[in-house]
Amino acid sequence: MNQIPSAILENAVEAFATLPGVGNRTALRYALHLMQQPDASVTTFLNALSRLKTDLHRCSRCHCVSDTELCPVCSNPKRDQGIICVVENIQDVMAIENTRQYQGLYHVLGGVISPIDGVGIGDLNIASLLQRVQQEPVREVILALPTTMEGDTTNYYLNKQLKQFPLQVTTIARGIAIGDNLEFADEVTLGRSLLNRVPFDNIA
Amino acid sequence: MNQIPSAILENAVEAFATLPGVGNRTALRYALHLMQQPDASVTTFLNALSRLKTDLHRCSRCHCVSDTELCPVCSNPKRDQGIICVVENIQDVMAIENTRQYQGLYHVLGGVISPIDGVGIGDLNIASLLQRVQQEPVREVILALPTTMEGDTTNYYLNKQLKQFPLQVTTIARGIAIGDNLEFADEVTLGRSLLNRVPFDNIA
Repeated sequence: MNQIPSAILENAVEAFATLPGVGNRTALRYALHLMQQPDASVTTFLNALSRLKTDLHRCSRCHCVSDTELCPVCSNPKRDQGIICVVENIQDVMAIENTRQYQGLYHVLGGVISPIDGVGIGDLNIASLLQRVQQEPVREVILALPTTMEGDTTNYYLNKQLKQFPLQVTTIARGIAIGDNLEFADEVTLGRSLLNRVPFDNIA
Repeated sequence: MNQIPSAILENAVEAFATLPGVGNRTALRYALHLMQQPDASVTTFLNALSRLKTDLHRCSRCHCVSDTELCPVCSNPKRDQGIICVVENIQDVMAIENTRQYQGLYHVLGGVISPIDGVGIGDLNIASLLQRVQQEPVREVILALPTTMEGDTTNYYLNKQLKQFPLQVTTIARGIAIGDNLEFADEVTLGRSLLNRVPFDNIA
């Protein structure tokens, strides 16, 4: 890393280097680029980022990001109010919305139970999920959490809590990705896709 | 690219995507990361970037970035005041400083002559360079501009202007990089390194 002849430039480089996947060299490139932009562009840039903290809200129902009290999904009367898909974060909501295959609602947990990282039940949006299944006409909760030890723990806990309500708890199908070769699939996924096989006439 | 459920988030993503080499996916990752940081961290982040515009100065002598009127190089009496190395931008200054091989001063042109990009002689720090060689005890000017058509044009123009003063104009050595194989070198570089060969006893 080259020596930086200014503490102010160095601070800006350090700031950029806090972004995920950004090293010192890339951070320097970003800082030098920003420095050379006209004042108005830099003001626009900084305002856009600053509004992330001041003006960006969470939907009061599903905890997804939203500019309004209720997010576009929650406030859309055409969405199926009887299904809630539970996901870890808003990236997952965006990924599912992108498929255009899902017409129900969401619930963003904001993480998964992870004792090692100090994330307990109280740190996640679990209480509000249990409240929703009591107050809303929910007939199905889809668990779409990651297949990690933490995700499985969270799935297990949520399933136990949700079982006391008159609704179905499901989980998204795991299996060989469409287009993938069986010979290159990992054995856990391949084994599970055999155990969870579906009648041929049922495939969507 | 996934659909973003918030205009404010989308604006932040667009802002990040203006940085060099940052696409929409990376910009989204940056924005979601920033959004999830504590208020104090985001304030520190934004202040560090905003100071790039408000507090960062250019050295009044060599035009490198500086927190003070004169940059650390220009204000160091131990540096050889008789040699000026002319470079395109401050990244070049940092790269040369990093070699610890150069003890003279710098002059940052701020670009090279490029009629296609609308960069003329008046847009570069050329007048101040000519002023320096008249006012300071300069005995050598090293041209270290890029070996592009624009760099060569600028070299040619600067050499013509500098020739009228009692000083030597030199340019950095171009040749096969140390450790590189001759068989993989491009023919222009290899040809030039033969033409500009140096007596064996002279090598540094």
